[in-house]
Amino acid sequence: MRVLVTGVGGFLGSHLAGRLLDRGHAVVGTTWGTSTDLLRVELHEVDLLDPVGLASVVRTVMPEAIIHLAGLSHVGESWQRPADYFQVNVLGTENVLDAALEAGNCRVLLASSAEVYGLVPEERQPIVETEPVAPRTPYALTKAAAERLTVRAGGVVARCFNLVGPGQSDRFALPAFASQLAAIKKGEQDAVLKVGNLSARRDFVHVSDGVAALALLAELGNPGEIYNVASGRAFSIAEALDRLISISGLKVEIKEDKERLRPVDMPLLEGDAAKLRALGWKPEKDLDAALGELWAAVRG
Amino acid sequence: MRVLVTGVGGFLGSHLAGRLLDRGHAVVGTTWGTSTDLLRVELHEVDLLDPVGLASVVRTVMPEAIIHLAGLSHVGESWQRPADYFQVNVLGTENVLDAALEAGNCRVLLASSAEVYGLVPEERQPIVETEPVAPRTPYALTKAAAERLTVRAGGVVARCFNLVGPGQSDRFALPAFASQLAAIKKGEQDAVLKVGNLSARRDFVHVSDGVAALALLAELGNPGEIYNVASGRAFSIAEALDRLISISGLKVEIKEDKERLRPVDMPLLEGDAAKLRALGWKPEKDLDAALGELWAAVRG
Repeated sequence: MRVLVTGVGGFLGSHLAGRLLDRGHAVVGTTWGTSTDLLRVELHEVDLLDPVGLASVVRTVMPEAIIHLAGLSHVGESWQRPADYFQVNVLGTENVLDAALEAGNCRVLLASSAEVYGLVPEERQPIVETEPVAPRTPYALTKAAAERLTVRAGGVVARCFNLVGPGQSDRFALPAFASQLAAIKKGEQDAVLKVGNLSARRDFVHVSDGVAALALLAELGNPGEIYNVASGRAFSIAEALDRLISISGLKVEIKEDKERLRPVDMPLLEGDAAKLRALGWKPEKDLDAALGELWAAVRG
Repeated sequence: MRVLVTGVGGFLGSHLAGRLLDRGHAVVGTTWGTSTDLLRVELHEVDLLDPVGLASVVRTVMPEAIIHLAGLSHVGESWQRPADYFQVNVLGTENVLDAALEAGNCRVLLASSAEVYGLVPEERQPIVETEPVAPRTPYALTKAAAERLTVRAGGVVARCFNLVGPGQSDRFALPAFASQLAAIKKGEQDAVLKVGNLSARRDFVHVSDGVAALALLAELGNPGEIYNVASGRAFSIAEALDRLISISGLKVEIKEDKERLRPVDMPLLEGDAAKLRALGWKPEKDLDAALGELWAAVRG
């Protein structure tokens, strides 16, 4: 299959490109404002918000599937930049859908987020896809809107819970902890680790399992359907941090940093991925493996 | 024409029903949780979020057009209740679009808001419809998303600037001022008027001109097109308040109330309605007329 991956230079993009190539697919990627040096991936630099440029890339590539990863993905930042989040995540998705439609016979898979579920009572968790979306943050509002556009255009939606592994920006919690631990190990920082809300519980999925799900859904996902990408088990951020510290072998003091707290934080997001599992997916790696790889990538 | 008006019990709904009846249309309305006693309007109580119930109403009524007013419309409140705003404004609109599609040959007009434009530099005002949307508030994010769904389904969008006149909830600035003035006049409140941000400049449209625009667009709007409903002239809230006080003939002290300030407030929203005017619309009543009617309705 010939697959176009938008935002191939990002955290998921590099992992996904590797996965697709391993499975024998041809991979073309788009980037915008980020440099990347993925071997065997044909790259096109194009702005999602340029419908003409994007359609031209799609027409040139003629992919059988587009896996649409490009977007703004930081919940905290979305409170400061809602308009940018709307434009990139909603209008950008619309441009991808239009370009795919114009190119004919091209499936679109949107990478979305469990954040769209919002505050779901514990007794309705792990969450199934039929749970009504109830987005609580600008980021989640834009992803929920992009989902609706995708579903209506016959695309497939992957609602990803917390993907974790090497390569994620340290604006996110676990990579931020890993970077601080690495700095502490190198003596660049006192042995004090700054943290935000540690009580939130999240369903962590190893990034390699996450991209395997995306690759599978791009091939086998039902048009207009939504699939959770989740392990089915939640850990608190505190527990993930404890494991990471233990993997690092360091002794550190933990200190709350008000700057790292968010206006709204869901206490629990745990997903039921039975629908995805029915297509043959199952997670192969656990949280410890993800944390181990994350640590290995940053410890220097 | 047989027209179904969603949210007919609201501020715009009652004015619009009158306008449509005057023009010889048959009017059917939906309400939900509000009571209304509109003469000559057949009413159906149905939740926008109940797609089956809504589709059943539409199938029964078989309208030639749906004017979709129902929704949550308070910018300030949307920061507290983003999930409700998403569900009602986005999923509700989707249900209306689906019901219309199922009923066949039924036009949909969505009442949207100039808030979707966000912070537009003064030199690009009055704003034309080609200005990229850049929503900055949860309310605006949901309306911008609802617009995209409507446009893609071949519906028409009316992007309303500040509609003003009798009947608007006093959670909005001018009706809140009018209510306070009425209370002062009746001796129920000291002669101190509590206000929020008075420096914001807004393009006020008399509600009767606003609903005339909606009625016109339901008949003549081009499928998939967006139309500003605007006077082309902005006044500061301070100026509108001065005029209202002068109309009331009262002497009052003005006091800023921090509770009434919003996290984000656009300094200027002024619209260019050339596209709507080309269909034959023009505003017939000015701000003073709207304020006069508003005052007459509340002064008791």
